[in-house]
Amino acid sequence: MNKYLRIKHRIFEVIEVAGEGDILSKIFDTTIIALIIINVASVIIDTFNIPATVTKVLSYIEITSVIIFTIEYALRIWTADLLRPEMSPIKARIRYIFSFMAIIDLLAILPFYLPFLIPIDLRVLRALRIVRLLRMFKINRYTTALKTVGNVFKAKASELMSSMLVVLILMIVAAVLMYNIENAAQPKAFENAFSSFWWAIATLTTVGYGDIYPVTIAGKILSSIIALLGVALVAVPTGIISAGFMEQIHKSEDNDKEEEKEYCPFCGKKIK
Amino acid sequence: MNKYLRIKHRIFEVIEVAGEGDILSKIFDTTIIALIIINVASVIIDTFNIPATVTKVLSYIEITSVIIFTIEYALRIWTADLLRPEMSPIKARIRYIFSFMAIIDLLAILPFYLPFLIPIDLRVLRALRIVRLLRMFKINRYTTALKTVGNVFKAKASELMSSMLVVLILMIVAAVLMYNIENAAQPKAFENAFSSFWWAIATLTTVGYGDIYPVTIAGKILSSIIALLGVALVAVPTGIISAGFMEQIHKSEDNDKEEEKEYCPFCGKKIK
Amino acid sequence: MNKYLRIKHRIFEVIEVAGEGDILSKIFDTTIIALIIINVASVIIDTFNIPATVTKVLSYIEITSVIIFTIEYALRIWTADLLRPEMSPIKARIRYIFSFMAIIDLLAILPFYLPFLIPIDLRVLRALRIVRLLRMFKINRYTTALKTVGNVFKAKASELMSSMLVVLILMIVAAVLMYNIENAAQPKAFENAFSSFWWAIATLTTVGYGDIYPVTIAGKILSSIIALLGVALVAVPTGIISAGFMEQIHKSEDNDKEEEKEYCPFCGKKIK
Amino acid sequence: MNKYLRIKHRIFEVIEVAGEGDILSKIFDTTIIALIIINVASVIIDTFNIPATVTKVLSYIEITSVIIFTIEYALRIWTADLLRPEMSPIKARIRYIFSFMAIIDLLAILPFYLPFLIPIDLRVLRALRIVRLLRMFKINRYTTALKTVGNVFKAKASELMSSMLVVLILMIVAAVLMYNIENAAQPKAFENAFSSFWWAIATLTTVGYGDIYPVTIAGKILSSIIALLGVALVAVPTGIISAGFMEQIHKSEDNDKEEEKEYCPFCGKKIK
Repeated sequence: MNKYLRIKHRIFEVIEVAGEGDILSKIFDTTIIALIIINVASVIIDTFNIPATVTKVLSYIEITSVIIFTIEYALRIWTADLLRPEMSPIKARIRYIFSFMAIIDLLAILPFYLPFLIPIDLRVLRALRIVRLLRMFKINRYTTALKTVGNVFKAKASELMSSMLVVLILMIVAAVLMYNIENAAQPKAFENAFSSFWWAIATLTTVGYGDIYPVTIAGKILSSIIALLGVALVAVPTGIISAGFMEQIHKSEDNDKEEEKEYCPFCGKKIK
Repeated sequence: MNKYLRIKHRIFEVIEVAGEGDILSKIFDTTIIALIIINVASVIIDTFNIPATVTKVLSYIEITSVIIFTIEYALRIWTADLLRPEMSPIKARIRYIFSFMAIIDLLAILPFYLPFLIPIDLRVLRALRIVRLLRMFKINRYTTALKTVGNVFKAKASELMSSMLVVLILMIVAAVLMYNIENAAQPKAFENAFSSFWWAIATLTTVGYGDIYPVTIAGKILSSIIALLGVALVAVPTGIISAGFMEQIHKSEDNDKEEEKEYCPFCGKKIK
Repeated sequence: MNKYLRIKHRIFEVIEVAGEGDILSKIFDTTIIALIIINVASVIIDTFNIPATVTKVLSYIEITSVIIFTIEYALRIWTADLLRPEMSPIKARIRYIFSFMAIIDLLAILPFYLPFLIPIDLRVLRALRIVRLLRMFKINRYTTALKTVGNVFKAKASELMSSMLVVLILMIVAAVLMYNIENAAQPKAFENAFSSFWWAIATLTTVGYGDIYPVTIAGKILSSIIALLGVALVAVPTGIISAGFMEQIHKSEDNDKEEEKEYCPFCGKKIK
Repeated sequence: MNKYLRIKHRIFEVIEVAGEGDILSKIFDTTIIALIIINVASVIIDTFNIPATVTKVLSYIEITSVIIFTIEYALRIWTADLLRPEMSPIKARIRYIFSFMAIIDLLAILPFYLPFLIPIDLRVLRALRIVRLLRMFKINRYTTALKTVGNVFKAKASELMSSMLVVLILMIVAAVLMYNIENAAQPKAFENAFSSFWWAIATLTTVGYGDIYPVTIAGKILSSIIALLGVALVAVPTGIISAGFMEQIHKSEDNDKEEEKEYCPFCGKKIK
């Protein structure tokens, strides 16, 4: 292995999630996570009335972050062929560029370079700053904690989707009915189906801001039914997800038992 | 089999849920689902302030839909005898007409023909337009996703009903008590038992719009108790439904194991 | 068996929950349930502004109900010795009088007779009318549906109580803290610990009427923490109750398996 | 054993949770619990407008409590060496002083002695009174009820934390987005990211006080999505905790079966 390849391998090791005892890699990971948190904080601070000096500091942070994230992005693409040694280097890199994490990485730096590439309205640019929040998802690379939660959602996707469909149908029926009931009494609050949708969501999710609610008797009866159904409909996804977590546990327990199974628990003989 | 019967069989195949590779049948299914979605959208659009041209387009959509749905309804009745070959054709058709899906199909087209049959008030006719939303349930024919959710509710119906009974009794007691407590302090808000029912539902379901709430100390204490019970009463249906989903999973797992059971899982011998 | 005893036995059969094919007993049960529903309805109607004639009808209903319930109560005490044949008749009756259902029966008729027994304020008498709602619990005698729900609550009582204790401690801490934070900014809304208790309950149960909420930054941070804890604390009783329902199912499944267990599922031999 | 050691042992027995039949120890426990409840009540009463005489009584209660709690604290440290006989007395005492319960005990009495030790502002002193609420946690010593709930939370800590992380990321994104959407329409309500955080929490936890809500169409759509996600995110911790309680039950069942397992449940033969 020549020196070029050795350096490339070392860089690949560093930018990947740190292995046991690899201090440089750990420093890299910590720096990236710290930068992400600083960036999110700066987006939040940006919404407050801040003196010009702070704005300046924030813009320096932004420039530094983008430079580091750009270098990181370039290095990741350069070393992408080590991720998939069975492919040709170019194919491996193209494949990497279109992976979920790489797209996030690109979106996190792109808004900064956009004004240099195409003429862009200042106000649109301001809005694009929010895209920086996507950098939070870069943390994903370093956490495996969300896996169980994600697995449960994946396993139960079809059941959750179908219960969402019921909620949607219910909401459409409720919203159109409520519009017809309340429009005469409150023409401003229940102006159209969109307004009653807003009411239907506030009621079904039991948020109930109190900016829109029925005043007629028929409307109150319908609202009561929807609120009670709302309770039932909260119960359904909860039930589905509970069952999903239980299954997940059973599965990992079954895996634990796999080894025990080699011997019959009853007669103690070896099972072929 | 003569030509008439062959055509009838083909039509039956087409209007039923599409089999593998039956393109015509798939086109038919997609058309019906698309029409249903367009119809629901048009009912929603109808609630906005729309120019006359859009109203005209909507009415054309309505007429086209009704014609197609009417033909579909007629074909379904005509081919209903193929659904139950063991019955006489007339009996099979009568049976079909009173099935849930057929009633939905009829209700979805009936309001359009009503004014031709009997003299009807224009405002009532407007209200009848909402019945068109029932067409959404025609989608049911094409989805099996809701089955698990439906099965859980069916299996747990008696437990859910009885917990609903407890909620109802609790609400009646709370509403009458609250009326007696708050009526003196807020004669307008807590005008009668209906008003306190409205409050009881908003509190038990934790919607809490904020249009009605107790102001006296006794009222606030009662409201606190009801709100805390509300939490408990949300927990009960959730618990019932969770248990239901778990059972459903166990059942399908048991079915999977059925075949395995013929052979001893430990020694591999056949079990008599 | 002489005639007196035969009649007594028949009356006992009639007032107890109807057996298969006992038409008279079924009529009795239906009458009592109908009367209870009419009584609850009349208490509710009573809260509306009603013309004098309706008030008169309601008072006739009340008198009729009380007479029937009094006769029922007397018959139940008279036949109580048949319920516990192993006791002496007097002991059996005393035991019955202090049973839960008998106390409900007594409380349901007592308020009517009170003014004849002791001088009583008219306003207190009005309040006592609500006691009539207790008659709803007489329905309990005819329903076994609540048993599973009740069993789960009984089995999980200690865990539910201890999670309630946590909620209580949390609420006390939150209420006193919030009083100290918000009292200066909103001396009227957060007047004393009772007001902040009211806020704490509205927040923890996520009712959120909107009549009381923090306006200071410290208050909003505390409120956010309490609201998030509220979510967690709803999850705990739900989890406990879910687990309870699952256990209940496992138990009844185990009972079903009891018989199967007589034969070894693996070798088919009889198990001693 | 000399007399000094016998007395020390007896005191140790008395201040520890009472054993079967140890009346003096039971009196001690009851006194401490009663004192704690009285103290909490006095902190609550303190928030009401109370006459000077009551304030005086409360201060007497405070002095008495602190004296008793101080003596208790001293005795506990003195007898701490009996708790860990395998250590040297000094080491055992230092270890005890830094235990959770000992720190709570110290914090519960410290604020009273502070003004004697260092000059302290009167207003800060007032705020320190709330620390007295910590005395509630002294009850912990006497209750084992919270153990199951605590165990479930400990076992599921990582899953709960990771779902909290998702909620946090979601809330940050929602808050910054909402600020950008609503700031122009409601510059006062959505003043900065902190205000929209307050809105995001009120919506995600479905509290919905109604003091802050979107008015623009884009804002209402975002709010609807957040409210629906809120339902899903309540379902996740509930599902995790439900699964946790189920596991807890299975574990204790497995422990029960441990002994049975030594004998084959089917043929009754001893299993090697």
